[in-house]
Amino acid sequence: MKATIITIGDEILIGQVIDTNSAWIGKHLAELGHTIQEIVSIKDERDSIIETLDRAVQKSDWIFLTGGLGPTKDDITKKCIAEYLNVDLEFNEEVYQRIVSMFNRFNRKVSESHRIQSYMPSGGKILYNRMGTAPGLLMSKGQTKILSMPGVPYEMKAIMEDHIFPVLKNGYSQDLKVYKRTIMTAGAGETSIEDRLHTILERFPEYIKVAYLPSLGSVRIRLTSFGGSQSELDGYVSVITNILGDIVYGYDDISLSESLLNLCTSKELKIGLAESCTGGILAHKITSIAGASKYFEGGLVSYTNSLKHKLLHVQLDTLHQYGAVSEQTVIEMAKGALALLNVDVAVSISGIAGPGGGTETKPVGTTWICIANKQHHDAFKILGMKDRINNIEYSANIALNNLRKFIMRYYS
Amino acid sequence: MKATIITIGDEILIGQVIDTNSAWIGKHLAELGHTIQEIVSIKDERDSIIETLDRAVQKSDWIFLTGGLGPTKDDITKKCIAEYLNVDLEFNEEVYQRIVSMFNRFNRKVSESHRIQSYMPSGGKILYNRMGTAPGLLMSKGQTKILSMPGVPYEMKAIMEDHIFPVLKNGYSQDLKVYKRTIMTAGAGETSIEDRLHTILERFPEYIKVAYLPSLGSVRIRLTSFGGSQSELDGYVSVITNILGDIVYGYDDISLSESLLNLCTSKELKIGLAESCTGGILAHKITSIAGASKYFEGGLVSYTNSLKHKLLHVQLDTLHQYGAVSEQTVIEMAKGALALLNVDVAVSISGIAGPGGGTETKPVGTTWICIANKQHHDAFKILGMKDRINNIEYSANIALNNLRKFIMRYYS
Repeated sequence: MKATIITIGDEILIGQVIDTNSAWIGKHLAELGHTIQEIVSIKDERDSIIETLDRAVQKSDWIFLTGGLGPTKDDITKKCIAEYLNVDLEFNEEVYQRIVSMFNRFNRKVSESHRIQSYMPSGGKILYNRMGTAPGLLMSKGQTKILSMPGVPYEMKAIMEDHIFPVLKNGYSQDLKVYKRTIMTAGAGETSIEDRLHTILERFPEYIKVAYLPSLGSVRIRLTSFGGSQSELDGYVSVITNILGDIVYGYDDISLSESLLNLCTSKELKIGLAESCTGGILAHKITSIAGASKYFEGGLVSYTNSLKHKLLHVQLDTLHQYGAVSEQTVIEMAKGALALLNVDVAVSISGIAGPGGGTETKPVGTTWICIANKQHHDAFKILGMKDRINNIEYSANIALNNLRKFIMRYYS
Repeated sequence: MKATIITIGDEILIGQVIDTNSAWIGKHLAELGHTIQEIVSIKDERDSIIETLDRAVQKSDWIFLTGGLGPTKDDITKKCIAEYLNVDLEFNEEVYQRIVSMFNRFNRKVSESHRIQSYMPSGGKILYNRMGTAPGLLMSKGQTKILSMPGVPYEMKAIMEDHIFPVLKNGYSQDLKVYKRTIMTAGAGETSIEDRLHTILERFPEYIKVAYLPSLGSVRIRLTSFGGSQSELDGYVSVITNILGDIVYGYDDISLSESLLNLCTSKELKIGLAESCTGGILAHKITSIAGASKYFEGGLVSYTNSLKHKLLHVQLDTLHQYGAVSEQTVIEMAKGALALLNVDVAVSISGIAGPGGGTETKPVGTTWICIANKQHHDAFKILGMKDRINNIEYSANIALNNLRKFIMRYYS
C-alpha cells in the first residue's frame, strides 16, 4: 500500500510544534510493510488542503490526515474534505451523544462548539476516539482511503491502534517486505562503533541498509532489509552483536530502563537512588516502565547540601573539603542511600548541570556518579559539554548504563 | 518571501528520525516575517526529488532542502539538483581541501567517499560548513533560490546562521510583518477556554489568528497577527488575560516550572516533594529550570509503602485501611514531607499510573494530590484516562499548577 501523510496546521509550519505524528504513523506503516510516499505539512486553509488532498489522491492508496478536527474556529479540515468529495456536512447524533456522556462522566458542561464539532461529512465512517471527543473519519475517493484524525498525538494513536492497524494487517501484504532490527548500544560513540563495524558491513548485501541513530550516551544501530528474510537479518544482527560486546544492551528500541527492569527482577535486586544534579530524571526514567515497582524502591532528590547531610549522612567535612560535586561526596551519598532506602544497589549523582555554577577546576558538565552495594563501589567522573537539559539527560543515561554494567559484573 | 522546506531521506518517512530541522527553519523564517508554504519530506530517490523541487519552484521564492549531502551511498540530492538545473557536477578543489585539512586536524584519514563528496553542481555558490565536511550549496532557478544543506541539525543550523539569515534580514524585509504572542494557561480544557473567549474573538480583526495548542493539563493560546502592530496585539493579549483570570500562568512559552520558580523565589518559599506514581518527574520538571535550587530543597520518590511509612511517617493503619492511593495517604505524605525536607510547602502525589493495578473503585488513572503547608492542606483527586506515560505527565502538570494556585491563595 502507498501512503501519504498530511499534517495540517500553521503551528507546524512556523515551528511552534514539532510534528511527531507523521514519524509515528510512518514508523508503524513501514513496520507493516507499507510504503510512505511523502509526508507533507500544510497551512489550515482551504486551497492548500484541497490541492494537497487532490495531489495525494493521485498517487496514494491511503491518505492519513492529522490536525484540524478540534472544536476551534481554525478547524476547517472537515469542511474541506466535504467540499473536495462533494458531500454535505450533517449533524451526527451518535458523535454528539458520545461527547455528552463523556462530559457527564467528568461533570463538565457540553457547549455549543461541541454541537458544531458533531457535524460530519456524510457517507464517512466514524471512528470512535477513546481518548477524546473528536472522532476519526474514514472516507473514500475512488480507490483511495482518506483518514482524518485529530492532531493530539495520543488521540491519533488510539484511533490508529483501534481502527486502522487491524484492517491494514489483513488486507495489504502484497508490497515488498521490509524487515527491521535495531541493536541498542550505550557507552560508545557513533564513530567508534562505525570503525569497529566498517569492514564487516561492506560484506553485507546491498539491500540491507544500516543507519546509526545517536542520542545522548547511546547509539541505536538500525538495520533495514528491503527484501531478504527475517532470519537472514537476524544472522547479521548476531554478527554485529558479537563484534560490539557489552555495549549492546538490547534490541528493537528497548530502553535502558526496560533492560534494567529485566536484569534486576531476574536477579531479585532492589535498587535505590540519591540524585542531585539530575533532579529526579533518573527515577523518572526508571519508573516510566510499567513493572518498575518490582525492583525500584525509591529515590531521594537531595538538591541541597543540608539534605545530603541530614538524610544521606554525607559528612559536613566531606562537603566542605571536597564540595558537593566530588568523588567523596557521591560515594557517601550512595552508601547513605543503601541504608536510607534499604536497597541492594544504590546510584548517586552529583554534578554541575549549568548554565551557572561552573569553576576553573569543575566546569559546567562535570558530574560524579557512584554505583554501590555493601561490598563494592564504582565512582567515576564524566564531563558533558552540552547545555543544562542535555547534561542532565546525558548523565542519567550514563548512570543507568553503568548500573547495568555493575550488576552484570557483580551479580553474574 | 514564500518558502518551501524539503527534507530528503527514507529515515524520516519510516519514522526512524523525527524531522526537527523543518520546525527549526520554519520558526526562524516566521520570526523574520517570511511565509512557509509547505514542509515536505520525501524519499532519497530521483523522481521524488525532481518532481518535488519543480513543484516547489512554481510557488516559492526560496527552497530549503536538507538531507542527502553526507558521504553515504544513497546520497543523490546533488545529482538531482544538477539534473533538474541542467548543469554538470564538477570536482571542487576548495571543498576537498577543506575536508583534508579538517581530517588532518583530527588525525583521521580522508577516504575515497570524500573525493566523491567534493563534486558539486556547477554554477552554485558553496557555503562553508564550520560544523562538518559537507558544505551548503546555493543555486537559482529563475527567481527561486534553492538552498541545499546537510541533514545533521547542528550543521544545517550553522549554515543557516552563517550564510542565510544575514542575507534574508537585509534583502527580504518588504514582506508582511508577523507578530506573535502566546498565552499560557493550565487547569482548563480547550473547549472551556474557547467558550469563554468565543464572543470576544469574533470582534478581533481578521488578520489576527488564534490557535489553541493543548497538551496534558495545559493549553497554549497562540495569537498571530499578520500585519497590525506589536502593541495592538499586546492589547488583545490583555483582553484575553482579563477574561481567563487565574488559569493564565504566563506568556510566550514560559513553562509552569519557570513560573513557579519566579513565584516561589519572589515569596522566598522553600518547596519539597513526596512522589509516588509520578516517580520523580515532578522533581525533574522543577529542576529542569536553571535556578531551581533557589527554592527547591528536594524530594522523595517513595515508591513503596515501607518508604512512605519509614520516611514520611504515613501510618500503617492509613495504608492498610485506605490504601496508598487515597486522600488520607497523600495528606500524611505531604505533612511527612514538610518535616522530612524542612520546607514551607510540600506536594504529594499517589496514584495508579497503569497499565496494571486498577480496581473497580480505583481505576487506572486515579491519582490523589495534596499541597500542604503547616496551616493548610488541599487534597484532591484527578482521573486520567490515558496510558501510563500520559497519566504520569498529566498528574505532574496538575500538581505543579495547583502548587502555583496554593501559593497565590495563601501567600498573596
